[in-house]
Amino acid sequence: MEKEILIFGHKNPDTDTIGSSLVKERLNKKMGNSNCKAVRLGNINKETKYMLDYLKLEAPELIGGVEENQEVILVDHNEFNQSADGIEKAKILEVVDHHRIANFETSEPLTYTARPYGCTSTILFEDYKANNIEISKEEAILMASCIMSDTLILKSPTTTEHDRKALEELEKIAGIDIKAYGLEMLKAGTDLDDFSAEELVNLDAKSLDKNGTKFVIAQVNTVSIEDALKRQEELEEAMNNEIEKNNLDLFVLAITDILNSNSEIIALGKKVESVEKAFEKKLENNKVFLEGVVSRKKQILPNIDKNI
Amino acid sequence: MEKEILIFGHKNPDTDTIGSSLVKERLNKKMGNSNCKAVRLGNINKETKYMLDYLKLEAPELIGGVEENQEVILVDHNEFNQSADGIEKAKILEVVDHHRIANFETSEPLTYTARPYGCTSTILFEDYKANNIEISKEEAILMASCIMSDTLILKSPTTTEHDRKALEELEKIAGIDIKAYGLEMLKAGTDLDDFSAEELVNLDAKSLDKNGTKFVIAQVNTVSIEDALKRQEELEEAMNNEIEKNNLDLFVLAITDILNSNSEIIALGKKVESVEKAFEKKLENNKVFLEGVVSRKKQILPNIDKNI
Repeated sequence: MEKEILIFGHKNPDTDTIGSSLVKERLNKKMGNSNCKAVRLGNINKETKYMLDYLKLEAPELIGGVEENQEVILVDHNEFNQSADGIEKAKILEVVDHHRIANFETSEPLTYTARPYGCTSTILFEDYKANNIEISKEEAILMASCIMSDTLILKSPTTTEHDRKALEELEKIAGIDIKAYGLEMLKAGTDLDDFSAEELVNLDAKSLDKNGTKFVIAQVNTVSIEDALKRQEELEEAMNNEIEKNNLDLFVLAITDILNSNSEIIALGKKVESVEKAFEKKLENNKVFLEGVVSRKKQILPNIDKNI
Repeated sequence: MEKEILIFGHKNPDTDTIGSSLVKERLNKKMGNSNCKAVRLGNINKETKYMLDYLKLEAPELIGGVEENQEVILVDHNEFNQSADGIEKAKILEVVDHHRIANFETSEPLTYTARPYGCTSTILFEDYKANNIEISKEEAILMASCIMSDTLILKSPTTTEHDRKALEELEKIAGIDIKAYGLEMLKAGTDLDDFSAEELVNLDAKSLDKNGTKFVIAQVNTVSIEDALKRQEELEEAMNNEIEKNNLDLFVLAITDILNSNSEIIALGKKVESVEKAFEKKLENNKVFLEGVVSRKKQILPNIDKNI
């Protein structure tokens, strides 16, 4: 048998990464490309587990890395430092993504579909439509979960008209009160009690590299910033360990209140002034409160990146 | 008035770069985005001039580079070293391309549509179809010219089913014997007599950089390799000048016989052994004849790149 094409999202998988991998596998199979399989690069978080349990689906198989010349399809990411170990030597056939493009390169032409939408699944939703492929109830709930996770139920400033329209249509196919389901899913993701501080700062951490300056922007969702900050001391210790271990110039942890749409940021490392410049606010006790800020991609990352 | 979005292809523009820029401008305007303008980064070659003259079109305006934060749409390329001067500081809104992705990066999400087709215009053709936009006769001849130029009238191994189908449908809209027109267009491009050797080696030259190894692969089309080789001595002198001026490790010139689908390669520089390894043939008098080889993208570049 021919070797399967592997479909995966980024390390520290979130709901869009897992959901979009599963949906892309289903879409490709419906289009006649059966030789493909969704896999994952890390542990399933509690929000994603809620989605999988609701749909009675197994998590995709966990892989450690990819071998040379392995054929792959990337969803929800493109930067090699967020991808599978060995990605440089793999054969990337296709990318479906909604992030900036950086630290990415191929030696051959490929299919690359990036759209500046709130969510990868919205691009996949439009692919179903463009190819006249029917969307099953399960696929609808997978895509809707991704959209609501990435846009905090359409409240994040990353939300586009495309995401709104997709969610509206997916709700009809799903046949459930999709926003009530979504709120339960998001809340499930904020239950952080049985994570160690080390796990928390790595749960949804994006590694970045700008001209040799290495930094990480991690994010956790909560329904109470106050509760999360009770663990500030051990979180800072975990962040400092990451800085030392990976030789980072900056570690930013955004604690995002998904009910009130605000974030508290903790920043450590020798480049913390990039954070102060980014938001024109002084850190106090390593922290700064950012009203109305919920999106790493649109509000946090570009501002810090510009000031690195 | 708001500043116009500039649409352009690569330096040393060829027919696909010019034609696709003009088509993309027309497509965007038909879709309601009127604030955009096709421009070019270099001189029009004789093949492209044949197309423009046939359609009684002016060449797009020549620009020297782009200013910081200028909004741009790239067609037929993505690598910054093939793009406008200042591209690093421009705001890239969209890319439509059929090449590998490398030396490319943005700080914001964007629309990126790459397909591994023979020609950029084939992707644009599919965009017209997907959006139900009518194709005018002029647009049909522009896109058909691009497809026939890049695929040597469907004879290059880069040709895909998508290109064939697009050309078939475009011929119907154009209402002319499209292949007869295409052959005249290609032949017009092979009239190299009034180019200096320096102009010839720069006419369609792709600059590449692999981990610091700088090389150029240039290509000229001809109907007689023998005729072209009468100028070998002055061509080599021009190539050596480029090597010295730009500190290159390798300069490859492919002289491609568009009637018989073969190429003669001239290679100079300290990395010529990459060419010998790529094709498992020894250079003699700095030359090697490659039967059946016509595509830089599919047959020449990847083989040399692997052996750099």
